Formats: sequence, C-alpha cells, structure tokens
Amino acid sequence: KKLSSAGFVLVELNENNHLKYKNSIKDTLSCLTTVGELPDSVFSNVVNQWVENKHIYNPILVVEKCSGKVIAIGTILVELKLIHNGGLVGHIEDIAVNDSHQGKGLGKVLLEYLKNLGVMKGCYKIILDCDEKNVEFYKKCGFSRCGVEMEYRP
Amino acid sequence: KKLSSAGFVLVELNENNHLKYKNSIKDTLSCLTTVGELPDSVFSNVVNQWVENKHIYNPILVVEKCSGKVIAIGTILVELKLIHNGGLVGHIEDIAVNDSHQGKGLGKVLLEYLKNLGVMKGCYKIILDCDEKNVEFYKKCGFSRCGVEMEYRP
Ligand SMILES: CC(=O)N[C@@H]1[C@@H](O)[C@H](O)[C@@H](COP(=O)(O)O)O[C@@H]1O
Ligand SMILES: CC(=O)N[C@@H]1[C@@H](O)[C@H](O)[C@@H](COP(=O)(O)O)O[C@@H]1O
Repeated sequence: KKLSSAGFVLVELNENNHLKYKNSIKDTLSCLTTVGELPDSVFSNVVNQWVENKHIYNPILVVEKCSGKVIAIGTILVELKLIHNGGLVGHIEDIAVNDSHQGKGLGKVLLEYLKNLGVMKGCYKIILDCDEKNVEFYKKCGFSRCGVEMEYRP
Repeated sequence: KKLSSAGFVLVELNENNHLKYKNSIKDTLSCLTTVGELPDSVFSNVVNQWVENKHIYNPILVVEKCSGKVIAIGTILVELKLIHNGGLVGHIEDIAVNDSHQGKGLGKVLLEYLKNLGVMKGCYKIILDCDEKNVEFYKKCGFSRCGVEMEYRP
C-alpha cells in the first residue's frame, strides 16, 4: 500500500525485535516528551509486560525500510469496562513522529491503523488526550473534541 | 475514619463479592452512562479479567453499611509506558455516585482514595477525562485542566 511504496512498513513491537529498535524508539519518543535513561533492563521489562498483556497493549512502529529506523510509534490500550454491557474502550497513547520525518503523513497513517485495530477489537469508542495545538491533526484523523483532560501530578 | 462514622465503607470489587453487589453497581453506573443488560455471565467475565490483571485494574466501591448497597464506584487503570523511563500513568475511570446520595462528599472521598492508590503504585501522573460540567468537582479533588479529550465512535 501507499506506506510501503513510500519506503515504510508497520511493525508490531515485540520481545524479539525491541532491542534492535531501541535507539530509534528513544529518539522518536523524545520528540513527544521526556524519555529518561531507559536502560535495556527497564526497556525489555516494559516490552515484556506489554507482550504478556497483548489483549490490552498494542504497540505499533512505523519503520523506514532503508535505514531500519523507527520513524513513528504509537499504541492503543484496550480497556475492558462494565458500562456499555462489558464494553471496550480504546485509548490511543504516546503517538510520536520523529522530527526528521514530520509532514509526510506518517502520523495519519499510524492513526488510521490504530483506529482500525480498535474497531476490529470491538471498541465502542476510541479516545485520546492531546494538546490544544494538536486538535486539528486529530480532527483530520476522524476524531472530534468531546471532553476535558484533567491531571494530578504528585 | 470520616467515611466509616458516616456509615460507609470502601471495598475492593473482586471475584467473591461481585454478584452480591451487582444490582446496586448497575444502578449506580446507570447514573453515569449506558450500562446495558449486563447478564451475570458478562458481569462475572469482566470482574474476573480485572482480577486477573490486578496490577492494571483497581475497581473500588463505596458501600452503605446499613443496606449493603453500592453507592459509588470508580477505578484507576494503571498503564505502563516507555516514556518517563518506563513510567506509570493512572487513568481514573467510570466514577459514578448514585443519584440518591449526591452531595454527601462520597465522590470526593472515592477520588482521594483512588489518587492515593495511584501515588502509592508510583504513577508519575494521574489523569481523567470529564465533561465540562464536572471540571469544578475534579478541581476540588486536586486536578487541573491539562488537555483536550477527543473521540472516534465507529
Ligand atoms: C494522543 C497522544 O499521543 N497523547 C499523548 C499521551 O499519550 C502521552 O502519554 C502524553 C505524554 O505527556 P507527559 O510526558 O506530559 O505525560 O502526551 C500526549 O497527551
Ligand atoms: C472521570 C470519569 O469517570 N470519566 C468518565 C469515563 O471514565 C467514562 O468511561 C465515560 C463514559 O462515557 P460514555 O458512556 O460516553 O463512553 O464518562 C466519563 O468521561
């Protein structure tokens, strides 16, 4: 498809491929927020817990074929609820596109993929929280404003 | 403490107590949103999956001692991330207070409990999404506005 002919491929992050992608994942996530040291032990522990809970965590990478580098990353966390008759809600989280590849539509392709994954898993809605400055981008991906995100930091 | 002398108690929802509380849980959740039929099989399946993933789901009930009924319910879903050095984020979800007991401060007590639980588990932040009309309530619980919630409904 479009992505492939442009030289990129979607890859599920897993226990076998994660160390190979570690540096470019850190680099890409640092375009979103603080990543920290993230030593191999911590990195592998997170990925292993995600893999053990595959029905909940779904981390997806956009990889540049020629360099083998991760250019974008994101996940959809699938939450099981009592409301809506034991319904599922998909939470799209930690969407990052590397600054070196902004403006190529890779974020939108990743979002469409994660949205479809949530729909296929049966989510009655898919939500995300973002900065005011990213609202327009998510509107282009089919999302609408629906509430206020509030936070408490210890 | 205050809650107890007022005739209420905090209870963790689990595989042993859930059927006893089912009717009043449905009644309380229906003050928040659509609950649906929620037959015993579906209800037990959700609770069992929550119990199997205790490090992620933390459903808490406020029970009225004299009647044994659930008056308020809520959860904190603990998400493991790569960002913030393998950090944890607490998502407060599905907070409902029965209409019959609004205005007694039970929602605030529940929120404080869930917030503390998130802090104890090491969350670097605790977030929630709410309607504009509930922003003032969550401000009283120590939360601040920080972003926009966006949704996609298939
Ligand atoms: C749609 C999307 O990707 N939203 C992200 C959220 O998933 C991420 O966890 C947060 C990190 O910010 P923080 O470092 O301030 O917690 O930023 C944005 O809200
Ligand atoms: C803090 C809090 O309790 N927020 C709830 C959220 O957890 C719940 O899932 C949603 C249900 O609404 P829905 O039925 O439209 O999905 O309502 C509110 O946003």
